[in-house]
Amino acid sequence: MKGIVLKSSGETAYENISLNPPNSDECQISLTHSALNHRDLWIILGKYPNIKFPVILGSDGIGSMCQEGFIINPGLLWGADPTHQSDKFEVLGMPTNGTFATQINIPTNALFPKPSHLSDIEAAALPLAGVTAYRSLFTRAKISPEHKVLITGIGGGVALFGFQFAKAIGCQVWVTSGQNLKLQKALELGAEGGSLYHDEAAFKSMAKEVGGFDIILDSAGGSNFDLLTKQLKPGGTIVFYGAGQGPITHLTAANVFWKQLNILGSTMGSPSDFSEMLLFVEKHKIKPIVDSVFPLQDFQKAINRMQDGEQFGKIVFVH
Amino acid sequence: MKGIVLKSSGETAYENISLNPPNSDECQISLTHSALNHRDLWIILGKYPNIKFPVILGSDGIGSMCQEGFIINPGLLWGADPTHQSDKFEVLGMPTNGTFATQINIPTNALFPKPSHLSDIEAAALPLAGVTAYRSLFTRAKISPEHKVLITGIGGGVALFGFQFAKAIGCQVWVTSGQNLKLQKALELGAEGGSLYHDEAAFKSMAKEVGGFDIILDSAGGSNFDLLTKQLKPGGTIVFYGAGQGPITHLTAANVFWKQLNILGSTMGSPSDFSEMLLFVEKHKIKPIVDSVFPLQDFQKAINRMQDGEQFGKIVFVH
Repeated sequence: MKGIVLKSSGETAYENISLNPPNSDECQISLTHSALNHRDLWIILGKYPNIKFPVILGSDGIGSMCQEGFIINPGLLWGADPTHQSDKFEVLGMPTNGTFATQINIPTNALFPKPSHLSDIEAAALPLAGVTAYRSLFTRAKISPEHKVLITGIGGGVALFGFQFAKAIGCQVWVTSGQNLKLQKALELGAEGGSLYHDEAAFKSMAKEVGGFDIILDSAGGSNFDLLTKQLKPGGTIVFYGAGQGPITHLTAANVFWKQLNILGSTMGSPSDFSEMLLFVEKHKIKPIVDSVFPLQDFQKAINRMQDGEQFGKIVFVH
Repeated sequence: MKGIVLKSSGETAYENISLNPPNSDECQISLTHSALNHRDLWIILGKYPNIKFPVILGSDGIGSMCQEGFIINPGLLWGADPTHQSDKFEVLGMPTNGTFATQINIPTNALFPKPSHLSDIEAAALPLAGVTAYRSLFTRAKISPEHKVLITGIGGGVALFGFQFAKAIGCQVWVTSGQNLKLQKALELGAEGGSLYHDEAAFKSMAKEVGGFDIILDSAGGSNFDLLTKQLKPGGTIVFYGAGQGPITHLTAANVFWKQLNILGSTMGSPSDFSEMLLFVEKHKIKPIVDSVFPLQDFQKAINRMQDGEQFGKIVFVH
């Protein structure tokens, strides 16, 4: 088999690998498509905990066994508690070998039927970003149709799924981005409005016009986080699944307690989050937004595109 | 009638006041006891929003009408949404005239029967701190008996009610304080352990021994808040109803999202929080911890005691 191997920090190679036979609780499937996540980039850059070498990268993937198609739940060993993952929890691609390969040994209970309305390319784009968005909005923030929702950093995988999921249940959704072009694309997809996140005046003016948000989905953190919490309505919720801009540098505590706000952390999702997400996507006929498709051997080109922040939607690989 | 009037910032006086007749939705009751909250101190010091002069101070009070005893819900005009107060919400004592007086005009629906197991002094100590602790732990943090709970700043009114309420349902409770004497008193009341909050090593060592907390009840905020969140178990909750140490200056975002934490703001409580709190106190025969009792005309002595941070429990006035 062939795959993308992380050999040392910053160094990947597309090479031949020999795969061990599967364990008794695993099966071996042929992977036909996979997709890139920011997590892969952070791992390559060494900005992720517990990195080891060599590892086959990749969390998202679909494949087949005996002519049947499967979509893979990338989160293994979640554990029994729905409120949080166990300390054995792992995501495919680090430290366990991942999906950027032509084959994988995978626990049988991580295989789910592929949603029937999706192409292979669309299905490959769904797993990690889809479950992260689903858990954040439904399991954690308890989103419902009357909520006014803000999605920051539109264009990223989780942000776009969050956008589509919230729209699917009937929410009005606003967005922010660092790029006007991405705001424009989001408006075409049905966003009520958008503003550049580094233009504080424009952002505040949009939030004021909306009358405040019920739910904000964020993955930036950093120095902007406090400003976001101030645009929440009383009783509102900000849920975040990452902190691309680093630690939260300031939080106006009185705003949080007086307005009875909820600040919720979320990451990945449980097996039941994953299966609920698949049902939701199937029910609402949601089609993942695909930015671009690369052959797996052009991995570096895909990484460069993500690193430049140009993508709007998922970057998918054909194996 | 006589009462404590805030005449200007920092200036209070015990003086004769003429009371208007009650409105159609109000009744006039004789107040026999009241109790001090930090809120009163902050209002006197000008550290509270929307201050006006002159106002009769005081949020906590009990009284009687036609020989029947009542306890007063100090939160008026909460509104219809249980998740947060309306923008009309007021707490007795600013800007509405409060309970540090021999009489008050009060909306009929703010009067509740006094819990039968409490003395007048104990009952007067209950309202604002009791409902704040109850909402924080039950309505917001969804406390349950298996939870390991940390209460910071033990000795304050809300902290002590939080301590008593958590103990009443069977939780193990740990505490922090700035004073060894208060830790000692909490241990005598059944705390599992305690540490000085400015002794970071001792605090971390206590938290490590516990194995992390499920729920933390805090009202300090400030630079210590991040350290608290790091002592939460995965899936844990920190709920805070104040920020005596000012804004939160740093929050390790990755700790919050990776551990699926909940950071919840809470303040005061709804009418249903208040009535549930009264039923809970009655059911568990909880007796408020009273630090000291003053005649109302010795108001300044009581304020001095609170300002010195010496009290352990509520400071109560006899009118």
